Amino acid sequence: MRRVMLTVAYDGTAYCGWQLQPGKETIESVLNRCLFELTGETIQVIGASRTDSGVHALGNIAVFDTESSIPAEKFSYALNRRLPEDIKIRASKEVAADFHPRHCGSVKTYEYRICNAAFPIPTKRLYAHFTYVPLDVSLMSRAAAYLVGEHDFKSFCSADTQAQTTVRQVDDIRVWAEPLTDVVTAGCILQGSADREKQRVTQTGKEIVIRVTGRGFLYNMVRIMAGTLMEVGRGKLPPERVKDILAACDRQEAGPTAPACGLTLVGYEFLL
Amino acid sequence: MRRVMLTVAYDGTAYCGWQLQPGKETIESVLNRCLFELTGETIQVIGASRTDSGVHALGNIAVFDTESSIPAEKFSYALNRRLPEDIKIRASKEVAADFHPRHCGSVKTYEYRICNAAFPIPTKRLYAHFTYVPLDVSLMSRAAAYLVGEHDFKSFCSADTQAQTTVRQVDDIRVWAEPLTDVVTAGCILQGSADREKQRVTQTGKEIVIRVTGRGFLYNMVRIMAGTLMEVGRGKLPPERVKDILAACDRQEAGPTAPACGLTLVGYEFLL
Repeated sequence: MRRVMLTVAYDGTAYCGWQLQPGKETIESVLNRCLFELTGETIQVIGASRTDSGVHALGNIAVFDTESSIPAEKFSYALNRRLPEDIKIRASKEVAADFHPRHCGSVKTYEYRICNAAFPIPTKRLYAHFTYVPLDVSLMSRAAAYLVGEHDFKSFCSADTQAQTTVRQVDDIRVWAEPLTDVVTAGCILQGSADREKQRVTQTGKEIVIRVTGRGFLYNMVRIMAGTLMEVGRGKLPPERVKDILAACDRQEAGPTAPACGLTLVGYEFLL
Repeated sequence: MRRVMLTVAYDGTAYCGWQLQPGKETIESVLNRCLFELTGETIQVIGASRTDSGVHALGNIAVFDTESSIPAEKFSYALNRRLPEDIKIRASKEVAADFHPRHCGSVKTYEYRICNAAFPIPTKRLYAHFTYVPLDVSLMSRAAAYLVGEHDFKSFCSADTQAQTTVRQVDDIRVWAEPLTDVVTAGCILQGSADREKQRVTQTGKEIVIRVTGRGFLYNMVRIMAGTLMEVGRGKLPPERVKDILAACDRQEAGPTAPACGLTLVGYEFLL
């Protein structure tokens, strides 16, 4: 019997999250099914992070036990031939038989993406939350700095948590903007002008990325952080306000929970 | 009666291309239906570029005539409330009553995106063609330079064209690589090491962008250019070979037609 670890990337759009749910298609149910087809064994993977419905991943982790003769490194290729296009294995390897991805220290990295433009961009809609309200990235960065370190994040946790403690350590938060492809439209040119350059209408928009690294997160913590930083970015809250929100230990003080589609679990590291 | 121009962005994944087809959902059929719901008029939009099934757009152009009292600039907002999430209007304005988007000179800009990584990335699959074969961007750039200017692009045109001439002018081609988000996986850390940094497994991949600007394109021209540049990028063809491929005026000499999903019409400009 060997324990194999998978690095799993997926588009969460079509799934009811990671965790098994009766009668619903989840990342876990698809992995279990493909592993059964591949090995003939009834396999139940153990996931590192149970992402919510609609949340994406570039590198979630799952382990499972098998007696199959397939070399651990080959599971990635064998599974990818059976998996749907929106779930792919990026690496597979053998790990210690007693390794449990949720019973050891880990550092996770999440990205929350915001499409900040005058009009929604259809090709961005599945992986970035859209808002036409202009957001100030430098204000968001200043606010984010207050969230770094060990704090009681009760204000950034959905009420229905089962966590014993709401104290967590955030190692790093970075907020930056990436340019969106400019679009030259014909709009103004039709009015005729010698100076075409000046007449061009280009879509001036940006994609804002909030990248958070930390040792474990509370339920909806990153999405509530994103929702709060968006309130700061639009000028509704001053950056310093985040200090008071933390101190209040009250979910009502923080901003709304940002939509799932903008969230991607990008990386996972175990501290052994 | 006024003529209104729309700048249309869409995710082509779910549609059978732009052009009306009996019994099939197309971008054009959705626009006509929403305009009817909005104005009560039977409206048939005239599209500037009839993109193929699965091709995306950030800025395609459509015009239509209406007697509705809705201000031209307001059509974008009114239509976006009725349009599905994968089709959005980014601008609307009144244009000359005799303006026809296919009967006047224009400059189009297309982008072809290639996800070049060890494993497919589910969240990229709809908007970039995936290949695990490492592509050399500098070779692709050198090859692309031979395509700039006025040439007979017969070798880069699908056999079933109705074009009278296969001579076209390409104003500019640029090829560059954008980094993909690195993913920290737990892989090697489980083997234990004092030097964790060195042990990190990060996804080293890139997204290659081929940006082509020109005055009109032949059927599948950009996708055949992309397919040919990929052959150069993988070392199968030397960059100079593109000169001979052009001279041959023979579709068989060029590379394969790259898949539709990687192609996006990013901009449109009329020369009036």
